[in-house]
Amino acid sequence: MEKNGKNGVGKLVLRARCFDVVTEKKIVVLNERDAVNNDIYAGHRIILTLGERQMVAIADLSNRLVAAGEIGLFSEVAAEIGVRDGEEIEVKQTERPASIESIKKKMDGKTLSEGEIGTIIHELMENKLSEAELAAFLTSIYIRGVTDDEVVSLTNAIVASGDTLKLGKHPILDKHCIGGVAGNRTTMIMVPIIAAAGLYIPKTSSRSITSAAGTADTMEVLAPVNLGLNEIREIVLKTKGCMAWGGSVNLAAADDKLIRIRHPLSLDPKGLLLASILAKKKSVGADYCVIDIPIGRGAKITDPKEANTLAKDFIGIGRKLGIGIEVLVTDGSDPVGNGIGPALECRDVVEVLTGGGPADLKEKSCTLAGTLLELSGKVEIGRGYDVAMDLLKGGKAEKKFREIVEAQGGKADFKIDDLPIGGYWHKVVSTGTGRIKHVDSRLLARIARSAGAPSDKGAGVFLHCEAGDKIQKGDVMFEIIAESESKLDFAIKVAHSIEAIELEKVVLREFRE
Amino acid sequence: MEKNGKNGVGKLVLRARCFDVVTEKKIVVLNERDAVNNDIYAGHRIILTLGERQMVAIADLSNRLVAAGEIGLFSEVAAEIGVRDGEEIEVKQTERPASIESIKKKMDGKTLSEGEIGTIIHELMENKLSEAELAAFLTSIYIRGVTDDEVVSLTNAIVASGDTLKLGKHPILDKHCIGGVAGNRTTMIMVPIIAAAGLYIPKTSSRSITSAAGTADTMEVLAPVNLGLNEIREIVLKTKGCMAWGGSVNLAAADDKLIRIRHPLSLDPKGLLLASILAKKKSVGADYCVIDIPIGRGAKITDPKEANTLAKDFIGIGRKLGIGIEVLVTDGSDPVGNGIGPALECRDVVEVLTGGGPADLKEKSCTLAGTLLELSGKVEIGRGYDVAMDLLKGGKAEKKFREIVEAQGGKADFKIDDLPIGGYWHKVVSTGTGRIKHVDSRLLARIARSAGAPSDKGAGVFLHCEAGDKIQKGDVMFEIIAESESKLDFAIKVAHSIEAIELEKVVLREFRE
Repeated sequence: MEKNGKNGVGKLVLRARCFDVVTEKKIVVLNERDAVNNDIYAGHRIILTLGERQMVAIADLSNRLVAAGEIGLFSEVAAEIGVRDGEEIEVKQTERPASIESIKKKMDGKTLSEGEIGTIIHELMENKLSEAELAAFLTSIYIRGVTDDEVVSLTNAIVASGDTLKLGKHPILDKHCIGGVAGNRTTMIMVPIIAAAGLYIPKTSSRSITSAAGTADTMEVLAPVNLGLNEIREIVLKTKGCMAWGGSVNLAAADDKLIRIRHPLSLDPKGLLLASILAKKKSVGADYCVIDIPIGRGAKITDPKEANTLAKDFIGIGRKLGIGIEVLVTDGSDPVGNGIGPALECRDVVEVLTGGGPADLKEKSCTLAGTLLELSGKVEIGRGYDVAMDLLKGGKAEKKFREIVEAQGGKADFKIDDLPIGGYWHKVVSTGTGRIKHVDSRLLARIARSAGAPSDKGAGVFLHCEAGDKIQKGDVMFEIIAESESKLDFAIKVAHSIEAIELEKVVLREFRE
Repeated sequence: MEKNGKNGVGKLVLRARCFDVVTEKKIVVLNERDAVNNDIYAGHRIILTLGERQMVAIADLSNRLVAAGEIGLFSEVAAEIGVRDGEEIEVKQTERPASIESIKKKMDGKTLSEGEIGTIIHELMENKLSEAELAAFLTSIYIRGVTDDEVVSLTNAIVASGDTLKLGKHPILDKHCIGGVAGNRTTMIMVPIIAAAGLYIPKTSSRSITSAAGTADTMEVLAPVNLGLNEIREIVLKTKGCMAWGGSVNLAAADDKLIRIRHPLSLDPKGLLLASILAKKKSVGADYCVIDIPIGRGAKITDPKEANTLAKDFIGIGRKLGIGIEVLVTDGSDPVGNGIGPALECRDVVEVLTGGGPADLKEKSCTLAGTLLELSGKVEIGRGYDVAMDLLKGGKAEKKFREIVEAQGGKADFKIDDLPIGGYWHKVVSTGTGRIKHVDSRLLARIARSAGAPSDKGAGVFLHCEAGDKIQKGDVMFEIIAESESKLDFAIKVAHSIEAIELEKVVLREFRE
């Protein structure tokens, strides 16, 4: 009930104690007693004044780091305000950030205006919001939900928080996958197909977070992916496509800050997920986008109803943002392709581009590419898949892929045997006989990561079977590949401690006295 | 939708970079890329291993403070793990704290068990929860509310988080005031009355936060209030009462940690307010407690309905906790007494104890004390006020007060003229003629603070009028008192910039084209 005091009209003058440490945030340290006496709490923004200079910093409180009457400053803040050890600095409370009222409004279940959401994202970018304040906002969104218009406002605010790619060409195509399926490297096949069809597709992708490889990690086996916005622009204007790492550009900058809070709390309210994904699409100027939502055991989304609702939301919000969206809910219960790990997945991709490779990866990539071709109006409805497959089979996609690899700084004439697959192999065999019930993406990723993926590009898992196959005891289920013997040993231990591939069983669980 | 990864089974070995800085929290700094590659996010708890030693620290991420492959350690963490600059440390994710699931449960609107709430408070005390996680919990409580049983669990968990006073005597009496009314120093009159009646009242009070003086600041004019738990026990066993600063003992320790998050967000969900107050009462072993809820313009609570609901909640929760509670909703629209500031308020108290003093302070103190005497069963219903007034008028309360002052380390034979009132005075006169409509506690506190209160004990405001009085232009409304001329000047400026005392007006506001 107590309102945050603004009564501290008295002056607080403190003696600087400078620490030779560089910090990310503009934090100063006050003695707890000084702070409490002046209505300053941890996380409050305060104004420092030294002569003519002023700056805003965030207060941290300590009884040990600084004594009463002192203020602790790290290198960056000390340099910015230009203070030397022992000098006196005046400290004042700032006005509370305007966002606080909007955050409380959302807590109370009210709808926020575009301006209010814009202010929250703006103050977030200016480091005016504490982690606690941001967590309160995200928790409120989680509990109260957001309207479609709020998602649109949030998306636009996130777009405005970062750079945007201005190609000056249209239409621009894009794709997105909700993720969670091992080996699902459709981007690296779709992008050259779309570009070979003459359409622009400036694709940015993520690195792995919990998987064995992200698209950026996989593409990096063949070419640099840390591209700046100007490089991306040049490459796309030249080749129509690219496959860059999203982290190397400052698109949708606020999203990274939001993720830092969302992740530790596993707090992914749907509205934020939508805004986060669509802001990245809008930042590259996408006119059309196909979204892949894999569902099933081991995928990120397991509930078909959740996938359907999400699909409708994407399309509805996309319409309000001026992005034509089509969503494919796909079977994500098994890994795609045979390889799991950057170089191994890259090999699957190259095999598909050169006419062979895993059938499921080829099929899925052409389906997604075909949908996108139809969505953009380039190809008539019903013909997309065939057009995509023709571009693949006729070698045009491969040619385009090599062109893009070269434009990004790789070798256009790479050979499949150039791929740096690890030298230490181990076969994992079945301990039973029967039909394979489930191949688990998440557990296989864990084994591949134990073997060194994604930082060891050549490490991972190579699958010899898929769900539905009948296998005999002693048959090879998969191989573990590593770049060193010790990592191989570690991964073997992990593989034996979990059941990444399950056979069908009649009795699932047994209860005894 | 993405769950927090636990896939990081690989080993992460980093080179220590030690910083000679003492920090309050056990924070280590990881390079962002290292962290992301190992599924570690800002605020995550990680386990550091060096040889046989292990410890838990909270990860902060930076790209500037440490390079990839490095880990930044501040003095305390470096000493605890025993690492030297350049040595290698192994870093692993910890299991997520058990509280996270409970926090998400509360987000989803479910009721938490006593065990779940106990775990949250326990992990809070062990620094296992980040500010973001705690903010998410408090936000969820704010939005979803808490049941009476949850408040009881929370209260018990907060009590268990700190020390408790074990007097071995009963009954123990206590009082609490929701606060916000300037000059409301009833505690310093009630405690000697109750103790003089032969009942135990081990009172702890707060210092001012936004006001000009808290009870602890005021009592400190006459005696030390920074008392340890053993001192309090001895004093109370000897004199039956005490008036200590709550911050000097470790009662209800978790409450301070909760307040640090609540305050910046102005987030005071009722359940937490109840638990916070009642935990302090339970920590001293209170059997009976009277609670003063002042309402009115300028007080913390302005809505009578809110006060009534809060009163019923206090009584209901108190019953479940085994504390007999009576609540008085009082008129808090005007300051109590004449002085505002530690020594000035202390003078009002001493005048009341010695037979004179402001009538409102005397009346209110005896009403509260009488209610408490009746509640405890010591005095029959309807006789409490008279018994309290007799103890006051007969000099027994004054005698007891001097006894307690002496027991706390002050002088028993202090005289009213010994009180250190500031030497710089300024009269603020009325600029109009009429009846006084409102005397604002909050604005007068601001003036008193500008004059130096509460750190300058002798500074503050002395009132010459109260609401309802008729005054003429040029009449003195109040005096500002300071310990230095510059502070007096500053307070005068503040006084002239605000309207702390309002005359009745027919037209409240005028709107023109």
